[in-house]
Amino acid sequence: MGSSFGKIFKIHTYGESHGPALGVVIEGCPAGLNIDESFIQAELDRRKPGQSKITTQRREADGFEILSGVFEGKSTGTPISILIRNQDQKSKDYSHIADKFRPSHADYTFQAKYGIRDYRGGGRSSARETVARVAAGAIAKLLLQHYGITCQSYVSQVGALKLEKDYTELDLSKTEDNILRCPDPEIAEAMISLIDETRKNRDTIGGIITGVIKGTPAGLGEPVFDKLHAELGKAMLSINAVKGFEYGSGFEGVKLNGSEHNDAFYKEGEEVKTRTNHSGGVQGGISNGQDIYFNVAFKPVATIMMDQESINEDGDSVTVSGKGRHDPCVVPRAVPIVEAMSALVIADYLLISKANRL
Amino acid sequence: MGSSFGKIFKIHTYGESHGPALGVVIEGCPAGLNIDESFIQAELDRRKPGQSKITTQRREADGFEILSGVFEGKSTGTPISILIRNQDQKSKDYSHIADKFRPSHADYTFQAKYGIRDYRGGGRSSARETVARVAAGAIAKLLLQHYGITCQSYVSQVGALKLEKDYTELDLSKTEDNILRCPDPEIAEAMISLIDETRKNRDTIGGIITGVIKGTPAGLGEPVFDKLHAELGKAMLSINAVKGFEYGSGFEGVKLNGSEHNDAFYKEGEEVKTRTNHSGGVQGGISNGQDIYFNVAFKPVATIMMDQESINEDGDSVTVSGKGRHDPCVVPRAVPIVEAMSALVIADYLLISKANRL
Amino acid sequence: MGSSFGKIFKIHTYGESHGPALGVVIEGCPAGLNIDESFIQAELDRRKPGQSKITTQRREADGFEILSGVFEGKSTGTPISILIRNQDQKSKDYSHIADKFRPSHADYTFQAKYGIRDYRGGGRSSARETVARVAAGAIAKLLLQHYGITCQSYVSQVGALKLEKDYTELDLSKTEDNILRCPDPEIAEAMISLIDETRKNRDTIGGIITGVIKGTPAGLGEPVFDKLHAELGKAMLSINAVKGFEYGSGFEGVKLNGSEHNDAFYKEGEEVKTRTNHSGGVQGGISNGQDIYFNVAFKPVATIMMDQESINEDGDSVTVSGKGRHDPCVVPRAVPIVEAMSALVIADYLLISKANRL
Amino acid sequence: MGSSFGKIFKIHTYGESHGPALGVVIEGCPAGLNIDESFIQAELDRRKPGQSKITTQRREADGFEILSGVFEGKSTGTPISILIRNQDQKSKDYSHIADKFRPSHADYTFQAKYGIRDYRGGGRSSARETVARVAAGAIAKLLLQHYGITCQSYVSQVGALKLEKDYTELDLSKTEDNILRCPDPEIAEAMISLIDETRKNRDTIGGIITGVIKGTPAGLGEPVFDKLHAELGKAMLSINAVKGFEYGSGFEGVKLNGSEHNDAFYKEGEEVKTRTNHSGGVQGGISNGQDIYFNVAFKPVATIMMDQESINEDGDSVTVSGKGRHDPCVVPRAVPIVEAMSALVIADYLLISKANRL
Repeated sequence: MGSSFGKIFKIHTYGESHGPALGVVIEGCPAGLNIDESFIQAELDRRKPGQSKITTQRREADGFEILSGVFEGKSTGTPISILIRNQDQKSKDYSHIADKFRPSHADYTFQAKYGIRDYRGGGRSSARETVARVAAGAIAKLLLQHYGITCQSYVSQVGALKLEKDYTELDLSKTEDNILRCPDPEIAEAMISLIDETRKNRDTIGGIITGVIKGTPAGLGEPVFDKLHAELGKAMLSINAVKGFEYGSGFEGVKLNGSEHNDAFYKEGEEVKTRTNHSGGVQGGISNGQDIYFNVAFKPVATIMMDQESINEDGDSVTVSGKGRHDPCVVPRAVPIVEAMSALVIADYLLISKANRL
Repeated sequence: MGSSFGKIFKIHTYGESHGPALGVVIEGCPAGLNIDESFIQAELDRRKPGQSKITTQRREADGFEILSGVFEGKSTGTPISILIRNQDQKSKDYSHIADKFRPSHADYTFQAKYGIRDYRGGGRSSARETVARVAAGAIAKLLLQHYGITCQSYVSQVGALKLEKDYTELDLSKTEDNILRCPDPEIAEAMISLIDETRKNRDTIGGIITGVIKGTPAGLGEPVFDKLHAELGKAMLSINAVKGFEYGSGFEGVKLNGSEHNDAFYKEGEEVKTRTNHSGGVQGGISNGQDIYFNVAFKPVATIMMDQESINEDGDSVTVSGKGRHDPCVVPRAVPIVEAMSALVIADYLLISKANRL
Repeated sequence: MGSSFGKIFKIHTYGESHGPALGVVIEGCPAGLNIDESFIQAELDRRKPGQSKITTQRREADGFEILSGVFEGKSTGTPISILIRNQDQKSKDYSHIADKFRPSHADYTFQAKYGIRDYRGGGRSSARETVARVAAGAIAKLLLQHYGITCQSYVSQVGALKLEKDYTELDLSKTEDNILRCPDPEIAEAMISLIDETRKNRDTIGGIITGVIKGTPAGLGEPVFDKLHAELGKAMLSINAVKGFEYGSGFEGVKLNGSEHNDAFYKEGEEVKTRTNHSGGVQGGISNGQDIYFNVAFKPVATIMMDQESINEDGDSVTVSGKGRHDPCVVPRAVPIVEAMSALVIADYLLISKANRL
Repeated sequence: MGSSFGKIFKIHTYGESHGPALGVVIEGCPAGLNIDESFIQAELDRRKPGQSKITTQRREADGFEILSGVFEGKSTGTPISILIRNQDQKSKDYSHIADKFRPSHADYTFQAKYGIRDYRGGGRSSARETVARVAAGAIAKLLLQHYGITCQSYVSQVGALKLEKDYTELDLSKTEDNILRCPDPEIAEAMISLIDETRKNRDTIGGIITGVIKGTPAGLGEPVFDKLHAELGKAMLSINAVKGFEYGSGFEGVKLNGSEHNDAFYKEGEEVKTRTNHSGGVQGGISNGQDIYFNVAFKPVATIMMDQESINEDGDSVTVSGKGRHDPCVVPRAVPIVEAMSALVIADYLLISKANRL
């Protein structure tokens, strides 16, 4: 269990960091969608390792192959299978930790759960797994494009360095202008310096990504358990290293009074709008047509280039020393992943909503 | 869709705020469990309205009837159906808003989604829905008791008033000693005053609940999408008025370096432990045997006793004036709901984990 | 697991033969459907016990109560909960078999599976469970009515007595004219005599029901595993006492050559039709717009009024003697159940099909 | 929807007849299972085309590659992805039917459902799809082997030629001794002649496969909807060309009286047994520990080497002439497919049953 996501627009992923390949099977994509392969590649390129000095130096072309479900450039309604082969595995880098549990990694928990694990690069628990999410998310984005919906995201915090402007004050089209993926060039520069410095200290650091979904019609969401923001939250929390999720007013909103927090409705032309948007575009678990926005907290990467205390499979005390190629901060590369998961949720709920009424 | 939760230990809920009844069907409860009805009633009593001056004055006995799945005091493995009848509905209180959209409620979004809605007391979107969750959660708690697992929670913030101690510094057995459900009597007193004052101002306020799960074995969780904390997050975000979820180090953790954040493993007797617990008991989406802890942010209740600007179904500008009986702050009554959802998640993952190995 | 059926139009049933009540929660019924309560009652009446000399003498009014999901006579899109209370339980009739395994009943298998069972009247394994299916099926029929689809069925065989005409040669509006529910009055009479005679011999006998679904649009079905006929087959095989399912040409079709069996396409006005219908309205698991028809085989009822050899829970040899009130032949009362399950499958696939295309 | 099967031991398949590849992702296989690749290949070889004069002459090596989920020869508990590339596609063979609907194929229904289709070799509706089932079924068989359970099947009827002996009178180890896969060599010879003759007449013919599952413990099955035989029936009905399913006494059983049909329990040593087995090893939808046996009816293959009347996408009358390489009778190659689906159902229910009790 656990490698499937979605209800109608469903994905099934597979693959280990140092196995032959990773991939995804996408079920439920409506027939007749133009499958733009260059767009899929572009999305994979945004996530791929080795992009800059602040990301891991592992080199993967992350080329992909569509194995099914597309005929003459269009989706046929049958499962779309996308394959991404691993190329730059350096499995030997991991032989020294074959029987050791790296602190704050999933080595110990996978061993406890299954009694066996592929220790090379974290196996299934590696963030390399997310390459399949981005491939699937690209298809979801193409579907949403058809309905005029966009899923964007950007880095809004690194360590204690926080972008104080909110998304309405930013030009999100500038997000890709720098290697950090923060649309404010000034703070981006400071964040890059902080990450670079952290990397030189053989350490890592956390960060926050803000997501923004525009163009969603009112009516998406499935109360009471599958509320739109609940599924979105699960989607984000399922990404490696994520520790928290909030939408709309979030944790800060608890300090407000209802009279401040409530979003008054008004009508502008034919459109129903709200004067404020503390609700983050979702009320009672259903979209209200306003922008959906949220924050996702990422912990510092667990792999550090220092010696650490731990134990091995026999329970003996051991020292784990940092090797391998890793990101000093996960957020720049996580931006397309956050968008992919957003797109998967919205695409799924859009299809579900078609069955709401007679 | 949307009224079911869980994979093996599954629940299906139904019911509206002012309909004849609410209820839940629980599938997948293992056979042979002692079903202690007085415990279920006690849990319902913790959630029921009219408990104190800081909760709604609606009066519901919230008695329940088990319709199936229990024979001679034990679960039989077949679906357990629990029925809770509504008694103190005052539907007339709602006739004045039959065609109006209350700000930050789900009136507009339900109408947009379904083209029809039961406007009385919010219908299905009312927090009254959670009575079914608490009934099901009580069964889940009984199951977890059998395995030595406990799910507790308490109020840790109201408005800007924050309990600065963390859960390890508190005596959680004192949570029920005051009407606020905060184990620190001093801050509880201040929080009660704040809520009472807010109520007198005809306003509402938000808060935070902290959850703590103890006794979970290592190995629960289903990567990559159904990570334990992702499902827990979804469970919490599905509760009415919740705006955020974080576990372990959460949003604050992003400021740390990996060298500070990593939890070193060591062995104490036969037990694997970690020196710190920034991971919040979950690594790679799987429990590691340490305590699981998390925070849940609740917005201020949307119903305030003031006039508010809004629109009606025809799109005309209208004034919504506050009537009905409502909580000025949702967190005291939400404590058993948070625990119920925790118990449902852990019970489900416990059963799933039985199929991990040969 | 196992008490839920459907993917979008989903039902969850509960209840034991001699417990307080049975019921069903229906999720995913589109909003805005007129819920005609007299129609639901009429369907329950067709299934209820005590209708005639050839059915069980247990007396149940099978009145029902809708607990949720309906407002001012219309579905609201939220779960519809329907409750049916048991009234004429004679649990004492079963005390003599409390620890005995009745031959060809589910006593032994429930005990083996769960280690505990409600022995009264078969508990959850009783055909009384199907009352909930018929209630849910009535809602599904109302939905299908809206789309011009009908689900009918009739008795086509009792023991070796077989109705040789196929459904196209019969007037199905006459099915309810006799207590057997066979639209051919002559053979119906013979079948009634056979059942009555069997009953007097303290024995039971099997039979076949033929189902016919008309008005289905082309395009329903979800290959490759959830083919329309596969789901229909599962639905039928899930009914108590069913031993076989075939659709279209069925088991007889294996004897034909492809040149005889193939259904040639032609066009009549705007409509695509087939010259023959060996396909039974389904090709490649998807409806083609022609009539869907199928046969369902029911074994002789296991409860006979004779002494039988068996064992008890301790494994000792015992004699089981027939007591209680039972049907000598299940097919007359199973007609509405077959229709209910048909309607549930078609309603579900109709809603699913809304998401096929952009 | 529709390309997934199973609840805990779940498979997701993809691929078209003339696309680059077919494959399957297997979720929920317990960790620690020895994955014997030569066994998987042997199963694929039993299904592969071009085996003999009575099967299609398409040549596919049907070699496979495991992409994930296996480490050092053992399953790790993560998804197992198996890839089978197509090699001998002759897509040109299909250009003449690009816009025509072949009678009793899925061309018309796929077009009606999706508005687009991959017409080459039937696309996703081709029986080539079953290669992925056999690969997954091989893993399921390895799992069942671990628990001492076997899934066998054989051809018991071709056209009107019927093997009159039941499975208890046959030596099933002889099934693979002839190209027909019937354990009785004499009738096998006659069946081969019948198929060969039919092929020479440019026609096709139907047949029946009998399945036998041995070693299943009592207690597998999930009433009321997911009864063991209901899921088995659905599994079989989902195989291409299947028109009927019966288990135990099946359609013939309806003629019996309860006093003849009931299976008396007795105890032999520690084992509970039944004197007869009309129940087919399943009572109330749960296995009772006796052999499970069933029949599956396959229609004559729709592709015949003759001219047939039909229509094209525009609704014009056209002639469809038979080309391509096809089986004159599907049953010899369907034997491993029936076994694969049996194994998938039993493996899934075996894992589910682990959560039945405390």
